[in-house]
Amino acid sequence: MGPLPQDRRWLEAAARLAGRARPLSRPNPGVGAILVRDGVVISRGWTQAGGRPHAEAVALEGVDARGATLYVTLEPCAHKSTRGPACADLVAASGVARVVIGCTDPDPRTAGAGIARLEAAGIAVTLVDCPASRASLAGYLMQRIKGRPHITLKLALSLDGCLALANGESQWITGPEARAHTHVMRAQSDAILVGGGTLRADQPRLDVRLAGLEHCSPERWVLTDGAVPEGWHALPSPEAVHGMADVQYLFVEGGAQTAAAFLRAGLVDRLLLYRAPILIGAGRGGVADLGLAHLANAHGRWRATDRRLLGKDVLEVYEAL
Amino acid sequence: MGPLPQDRRWLEAAARLAGRARPLSRPNPGVGAILVRDGVVISRGWTQAGGRPHAEAVALEGVDARGATLYVTLEPCAHKSTRGPACADLVAASGVARVVIGCTDPDPRTAGAGIARLEAAGIAVTLVDCPASRASLAGYLMQRIKGRPHITLKLALSLDGCLALANGESQWITGPEARAHTHVMRAQSDAILVGGGTLRADQPRLDVRLAGLEHCSPERWVLTDGAVPEGWHALPSPEAVHGMADVQYLFVEGGAQTAAAFLRAGLVDRLLLYRAPILIGAGRGGVADLGLAHLANAHGRWRATDRRLLGKDVLEVYEAL
Repeated sequence: MGPLPQDRRWLEAAARLAGRARPLSRPNPGVGAILVRDGVVISRGWTQAGGRPHAEAVALEGVDARGATLYVTLEPCAHKSTRGPACADLVAASGVARVVIGCTDPDPRTAGAGIARLEAAGIAVTLVDCPASRASLAGYLMQRIKGRPHITLKLALSLDGCLALANGESQWITGPEARAHTHVMRAQSDAILVGGGTLRADQPRLDVRLAGLEHCSPERWVLTDGAVPEGWHALPSPEAVHGMADVQYLFVEGGAQTAAAFLRAGLVDRLLLYRAPILIGAGRGGVADLGLAHLANAHGRWRATDRRLLGKDVLEVYEAL
Repeated sequence: MGPLPQDRRWLEAAARLAGRARPLSRPNPGVGAILVRDGVVISRGWTQAGGRPHAEAVALEGVDARGATLYVTLEPCAHKSTRGPACADLVAASGVARVVIGCTDPDPRTAGAGIARLEAAGIAVTLVDCPASRASLAGYLMQRIKGRPHITLKLALSLDGCLALANGESQWITGPEARAHTHVMRAQSDAILVGGGTLRADQPRLDVRLAGLEHCSPERWVLTDGAVPEGWHALPSPEAVHGMADVQYLFVEGGAQTAAAFLRAGLVDRLLLYRAPILIGAGRGGVADLGLAHLANAHGRWRATDRRLLGKDVLEVYEAL
């Protein structure tokens, strides 16, 4: 059946719930589900740490779902696993009257089979093209479709684009609010990467220093073909991200050479610019050589999608076009 | 008498009217005036081209002002001139019951004498500290108080702070909307200045290319102690702005060396950053060496005051703290 006016709103709510699964659901996608009857929420769920139970199983657990509508950001899985039943079977047996899905699952074991199994059980299924659902699954979809993580490049810059004085001093460009926000972004990532120069110069801990989120500290990677310190992983080149199968969200924190290497390779999906209201003048630029021959080649690559004030600083978010 | 609740709103309206005087009122300040009776506007005025008639004279011309309130952004002048009567006398004779003033006049020939003369004539005078009035008089007040123009530095930058590729290509960083906005800013200035390098490299016309505003094209200055082309003025150093007695608003358009020279001298009051959503990488930075020894010295100098979208670009406005 076709979508109802309220479908998009419930799917967006489910996509916000899915955010609670990030990043602990890995290697599974972080999915959100809401069970609704007569406009009232009966229950909800999101993918649990380690990937099980799935969001649908959490939402359906211990409730009478008969006649209700299940909103779920991703097509329910059609494949059984040693770790639990197929969600399509679980949903089919639950007695729900209708399922609204925000995004089909490109996993070849599901890819439409989940929807087919629900319809075969007599359930009305509506597929809505829901940007919020897709955005909440960006890392999972990127792995399924392009075989690499979703990659965010973070830069903390002065108004004139510097990440340090000419003498290397870089603590601090941005204020405590912006730095705390960076820790939230780290906590939502599976892996963080810096360049070899930044590792040697700053010896960053790259951990999550937010009370209650220490357990979310992601894997630490360094862009190098040399040796790495204990507890770190080496990535020999940006293109090697295609081997990071368990990483849905990669957070690249610079420096300038690493930023340029990922940009040159076309391997940045999202740009987070923490912008401080200061001028440095002839400092160290945030992005090294991109090999641009003409200005025209720089245009049409980025779209501003978000902006927020963080203390005296501003966070600007751009997505790759 | 003390201010009434509506006083600030009328003064802000008068300050917006004053914008119509800019920059053609020079060498006089651009003043706005509104005559109100029982909450209804009777008439209004702003300083005319060349400085006369004054705003008060325009607002009072040909109307019955008896019992009304005159809102004026600047204290009415107390000095007669060969070019016209003192506004304080004109207002005193008009029969207005009350005058509300947004800013006292630091001109020693007025400086409180205007208010005194109105009060001596039995008119109730209210002085409101009105930021909008002061902002609309920024250039005039800067000349009176610091003996130099109000100085705006404009930079058109990529996200990573470059104003050109490494090879010098700079046309265009920003799009047509941002460039048109720059022409509006030029049209509100008395003088525009570029550095010698920019003059030689770009041969900018620096005129106002907006239909109906061509007559507002300001004086063209270049920062140099050498010779200048015909039609241009030479400024040997940023500090020499103290000799620009007829210039209320100076618009500095770069390049990087000129920007840095004015910033080092503490001679930038306002920063206009036209920011394009592009990355250049290892291009030419927008601001040359500022002689910063420590990052701490860069902080606490700028406050964001405005931001607007201009096509794909963003204009960010900062005021010096």
